[in-house]
Amino acid sequence: MSRVYNFSAGPAMLPEEVLKEAAEEMTDYRGTGMSVMEMSHRSQAFASILNEAETDIRELMHIPENYKVLFLQGGVSLQFAMIPMNLMKNKVADYIVTGQWAKKAYQEAQKYGRVNKIASSEDKTFSYIPDCSDLSVSPDADYVYICENNTIYGTKFRELPDTKGKPLVADVSSCFLSEPVDVTKYGLIYGGVQKNIGPAGVVIVIIREDLITEDVLPGTPTMMQYKTHADAGSLYNTPPAYGIYICGKVFKWLKKQGGLEEIKKKNEKKAKLLYDYLDESCLFKGTVEKKDRSLMNVPFVTGNEELDAKFVKEAKEAGLENLKGHRSVGGMRASIYNAMPYEGVQALVDFMKKFEKENL
Amino acid sequence: MSRVYNFSAGPAMLPEEVLKEAAEEMTDYRGTGMSVMEMSHRSQAFASILNEAETDIRELMHIPENYKVLFLQGGVSLQFAMIPMNLMKNKVADYIVTGQWAKKAYQEAQKYGRVNKIASSEDKTFSYIPDCSDLSVSPDADYVYICENNTIYGTKFRELPDTKGKPLVADVSSCFLSEPVDVTKYGLIYGGVQKNIGPAGVVIVIIREDLITEDVLPGTPTMMQYKTHADAGSLYNTPPAYGIYICGKVFKWLKKQGGLEEIKKKNEKKAKLLYDYLDESCLFKGTVEKKDRSLMNVPFVTGNEELDAKFVKEAKEAGLENLKGHRSVGGMRASIYNAMPYEGVQALVDFMKKFEKENL
Repeated sequence: MSRVYNFSAGPAMLPEEVLKEAAEEMTDYRGTGMSVMEMSHRSQAFASILNEAETDIRELMHIPENYKVLFLQGGVSLQFAMIPMNLMKNKVADYIVTGQWAKKAYQEAQKYGRVNKIASSEDKTFSYIPDCSDLSVSPDADYVYICENNTIYGTKFRELPDTKGKPLVADVSSCFLSEPVDVTKYGLIYGGVQKNIGPAGVVIVIIREDLITEDVLPGTPTMMQYKTHADAGSLYNTPPAYGIYICGKVFKWLKKQGGLEEIKKKNEKKAKLLYDYLDESCLFKGTVEKKDRSLMNVPFVTGNEELDAKFVKEAKEAGLENLKGHRSVGGMRASIYNAMPYEGVQALVDFMKKFEKENL
Repeated sequence: MSRVYNFSAGPAMLPEEVLKEAAEEMTDYRGTGMSVMEMSHRSQAFASILNEAETDIRELMHIPENYKVLFLQGGVSLQFAMIPMNLMKNKVADYIVTGQWAKKAYQEAQKYGRVNKIASSEDKTFSYIPDCSDLSVSPDADYVYICENNTIYGTKFRELPDTKGKPLVADVSSCFLSEPVDVTKYGLIYGGVQKNIGPAGVVIVIIREDLITEDVLPGTPTMMQYKTHADAGSLYNTPPAYGIYICGKVFKWLKKQGGLEEIKKKNEKKAKLLYDYLDESCLFKGTVEKKDRSLMNVPFVTGNEELDAKFVKEAKEAGLENLKGHRSVGGMRASIYNAMPYEGVQALVDFMKKFEKENL
């Protein structure tokens, strides 16, 4: 069978050329006589892989020198605890709840201090981003937290909240490296790589150096202190080496695409194709307020559950995979991350048009 | 270049046929049209991979039904905190310190309660396993902790300590699946997979069900509760899916080898070849008390640092890689895990004989 167009929300499509290279290097990485999986993480060969990965993501995101880049394990779910354990000096934090993942982060943080929900869009099933231009930020808040792109609901912060000078902490898992970003506006940016960058099992944390301190909450495990990993250059213990290697290849692929400015144009073109069709369709409609639409995750419905199920089934038969929406929204969702080619979205829209004709 | 014999202590050699299969399936896993890296962890294809992996390791280790098998992230270093956070009901634990990793576990546990070092071999650079047949186990100890095979020092518990009825917790990273094991003698067995099983980034925890409770230390992150992962079948969050997939292939490879009984015979044969030569050599000598020798990690020295360095360098040129010993022991170390073929150890011994002749 040939490759399918995989609209999974994550783990998700990776560039085919990255996978092919990885396959070719599997039993012998560039004359070392071994796989990257078999390599000591203290070897020169792996040091080069790690260093190049860091250099390339720094270049892609224009990460200033006073930010550290950490390659960690445990997923964003572990970060939900790691962030308050490290940053809650006053034991106060403000959370903006725009979806299930922000909500989980908000709930987990409650174990560690006083946590305020200063904005939310739960009243309308998280189908929009609340106005964050003048929030009641707590005067003693250690940070303000957002999930910048909401994978399940298909919304994205088009403007960052005004945090009134408090460090902004952002989970960018589902928009990581999808467009240029001004890192200086954040205290901490982090995300799981399994949507836009690599295989599940790696979390990248970009953190301003002044937020990395020894002054963490009592009982914080050594492995959950940013300082542990920052001091050791992500080599305190054996890192998820193979995952980092794949991430590194994706960084190089992104550079070849022209960097984040160019990938943004491609992502906008792909998203426009799908949103334009949704806006004119008589059968399908998007579920998100237009101003807050994500470039990465596009949920849509027919309004008829049976028809939704039929669509997902027939789409799969046509090589368009994983279009079923999250159970909390229903309907369909097309995740169109960096690695989804324009042709994939075109094939989806063509199929939707055909389905609309047959079923309206 | 062809494949080298890689004596790395970990990450380490994997069976070549496993790597070849993974390479072949990289862009299209068995007709799914996608890589395992790209697969939703909620998909049927991945559910099969995870279920088969669990079934196979249960079969290999004869794991009783009242034990859970968890596939986690974060490495053994995260377990150093996770174990006390979950098991320290009385806030007391006993540790047997037979190497650097046991020592790190012992130190980390001190964050969470009263921790007793009830035996140690630090007096002789961890070159032996202390007598553990009649230890002063604390009456209120929540568990007794060991590192069963000491990667750096090349020692192994040939008999398990008498824990006086307390649950035994064992880090088996460097002897995982290298020989049959009586799971019922342990409360919790765990290890990083990157020595004997798969790529770094996966930790397997085998835990008796009665030790999985909600009664954990205050402030324990949700992700660090065994119950979280046990209840969700290792799918609470996105697991390190690709790593689990490779582990699964290694389990199948082990079954094809005849299971743990047969792999033990092979490991004994390999180790005997090397130890017999060390015992008769006039140049090289092993650093470990014979009764406590590991089948997996074999440290040895010439007694002359310059000669050690020369050996490591020339061995590398001959395709025998990563023979440099850990800095705390010096000299050389050959890690001869399951995937190291007999021919690799034979090549090493042949090379050592030649080197001895040339340099004595």
